[in-house]
Amino acid sequence: MDPVAPSGTVASDLITPEELRLAARNHGCPLEALREPITPAGLHYLLIHYDIPAVDSETFRLEIAGEVARPLSLTLDDLRARPRVTLPVTFECAGNGRALLAPRPVSQPWLTEAVGTAEWGGTLLRPLLEEAGVGDRAVEALFTGLDRGVEGGTHQAYERSLPLAEALGQDVLLAYEMNGGPLPAQHGFPLRLVVPGWYGMTNVKWLGSVTLLDEPFGGYQNAVAYRRYDVAGEPGEPVTRMMPRSLMVPPGVPDFMSRERVLEPGPVELRGRAWSGWGEVERVEVSVDGGATFADAVLEEPLSATAWRGWRLDWDAVTGSHELCSRATDSAGNTQPTAAPWNLKGYANNAVERIPATVDA
Amino acid sequence: MDPVAPSGTVASDLITPEELRLAARNHGCPLEALREPITPAGLHYLLIHYDIPAVDSETFRLEIAGEVARPLSLTLDDLRARPRVTLPVTFECAGNGRALLAPRPVSQPWLTEAVGTAEWGGTLLRPLLEEAGVGDRAVEALFTGLDRGVEGGTHQAYERSLPLAEALGQDVLLAYEMNGGPLPAQHGFPLRLVVPGWYGMTNVKWLGSVTLLDEPFGGYQNAVAYRRYDVAGEPGEPVTRMMPRSLMVPPGVPDFMSRERVLEPGPVELRGRAWSGWGEVERVEVSVDGGATFADAVLEEPLSATAWRGWRLDWDAVTGSHELCSRATDSAGNTQPTAAPWNLKGYANNAVERIPATVDA
Repeated sequence: MDPVAPSGTVASDLITPEELRLAARNHGCPLEALREPITPAGLHYLLIHYDIPAVDSETFRLEIAGEVARPLSLTLDDLRARPRVTLPVTFECAGNGRALLAPRPVSQPWLTEAVGTAEWGGTLLRPLLEEAGVGDRAVEALFTGLDRGVEGGTHQAYERSLPLAEALGQDVLLAYEMNGGPLPAQHGFPLRLVVPGWYGMTNVKWLGSVTLLDEPFGGYQNAVAYRRYDVAGEPGEPVTRMMPRSLMVPPGVPDFMSRERVLEPGPVELRGRAWSGWGEVERVEVSVDGGATFADAVLEEPLSATAWRGWRLDWDAVTGSHELCSRATDSAGNTQPTAAPWNLKGYANNAVERIPATVDA
Repeated sequence: MDPVAPSGTVASDLITPEELRLAARNHGCPLEALREPITPAGLHYLLIHYDIPAVDSETFRLEIAGEVARPLSLTLDDLRARPRVTLPVTFECAGNGRALLAPRPVSQPWLTEAVGTAEWGGTLLRPLLEEAGVGDRAVEALFTGLDRGVEGGTHQAYERSLPLAEALGQDVLLAYEMNGGPLPAQHGFPLRLVVPGWYGMTNVKWLGSVTLLDEPFGGYQNAVAYRRYDVAGEPGEPVTRMMPRSLMVPPGVPDFMSRERVLEPGPVELRGRAWSGWGEVERVEVSVDGGATFADAVLEEPLSATAWRGWRLDWDAVTGSHELCSRATDSAGNTQPTAAPWNLKGYANNAVERIPATVDA
């Protein structure tokens, strides 16, 4: 590895104090929770750019404005009075896998756990926009949160835009429920955007307004963050849909400190879940020899087109050291790579997972 | 600092990959959540030694055995049929503050956020032990969880003992509820121990048995872990009750990466919460100049003798850089120090917090 890492990255595998401050607040989904098809609140991953705002649900209004014929100002009761839809949706942070890159982009240092699937409940966005009357000049929808902070030297609310066609997608949801209960504060109470298939940064929490724009949004989270920068710092393409990834429920028991797995010899059912934002997961392969050979796992029936898919494979664990891997292939023909293309901010690193495991005699 | 750090510690402030693996699973309470007297599930800190076990509440039994006249085997319904008690209790991880020590003990790298206060609901332990008939030879109660892992090279269930007098304390609870709902899996479903005033490791999750012992327990979590080791590696005194600590709701807004606070000039209400396992919090002092001078905060009425106490102080924020601190004093005469006594495993570091804040013109 080049010992001179590009600006904003470090060549060492040691984590800086600023990365630790992020890791102490945000958290992944403990991988044993992958045994559940729906991730309980509290185990779902969380990445919060600024602070969790305290939002008064009584005075809360969702403002729909910009290039619309009839701007709307909606209370939470107004939204609840509309047709209710629930949908299991898999979210994954765009930075998942970042801390496994070398050199490592300095930001929230995710390993592989930044994922979760919740049953989101709310009302569809499209009929609301149709009711407001989408203007002929509208090209994007900007979603603005009620949280505020400083990022890249700029005071801002967290806000991101979507191309109009994506915002009008048939399963784009304004969610006020998670897993049958009210949205927890940390997941966006009282209202958040849910865009199935896209990386997590799309699902704006504490959503306060939807503004239709007549030109592409040039703000921080679209123009500066969440792009596949090259090593020279050129912004490159925006980060959009989730690349395929499979993760395993770690078998056996962990060592407290190393988290390495320890198993007894004998039959073990390896299990996991796989997802992609580009199509259905059509194949999951499993390796117990660090990727030298793979076997096809049995796929479970899909939970929905918007959520991960379970898989299983029987393994006769023999004494010794093993490296367990799984990799997903989707219906668009994408397969997880052994090493994903490096980018300066560390997005979409969907390289095949590697779980060290020792089978004791 | 001596560049040769004692075994098990590192002299650098850079975090090792094994510490990152722990930090990616476990998480603190985002400090803005200190505005809530009761911490919502999902924001309460979590430290899980091994994996979250999947416990079947139908076949679950709590076994009460050892030095008792009449061993008991209780279903969850048996426990629910007994008198129900709810109690707000502040939990803090014994390792809170570890990552701020130098040299830094290598384990879960907590900054200051490993705290939370929940309303725990369940039934008292003491009447159950009395019903089982405490034997004359009993000196300790051993609490054994249903989670398993490897720690210090030893396969084990997580288990810790308490002196009998502590186990018979009037507010020691077997909790099956958190904040009015069922215990979440990650907080010990279906049953956990709650011992007000003690550090978090005492509150054994996924509690499967209580065994009265006729001699002190010599197992890992009491004899090896959770002791105040000196620099030479001598085990020293066990870690027991929480030392006093005060934390502030960070004012203003954060910078995404550094988490440093940015405020506008003018009046700000500084707020926070303080607790101690040794007595009531009787005083909280606040500094905006890095501890050079302190002013007394106004204390709120205590939530209960088992939970943290809110405090407030008005501040007229003036342009410039500030370091915000708060420190608690309890009724036993303990005051938070500027630097806590160092110990090899990094327990009970209750040094006064320091929050960098910039007030912009």
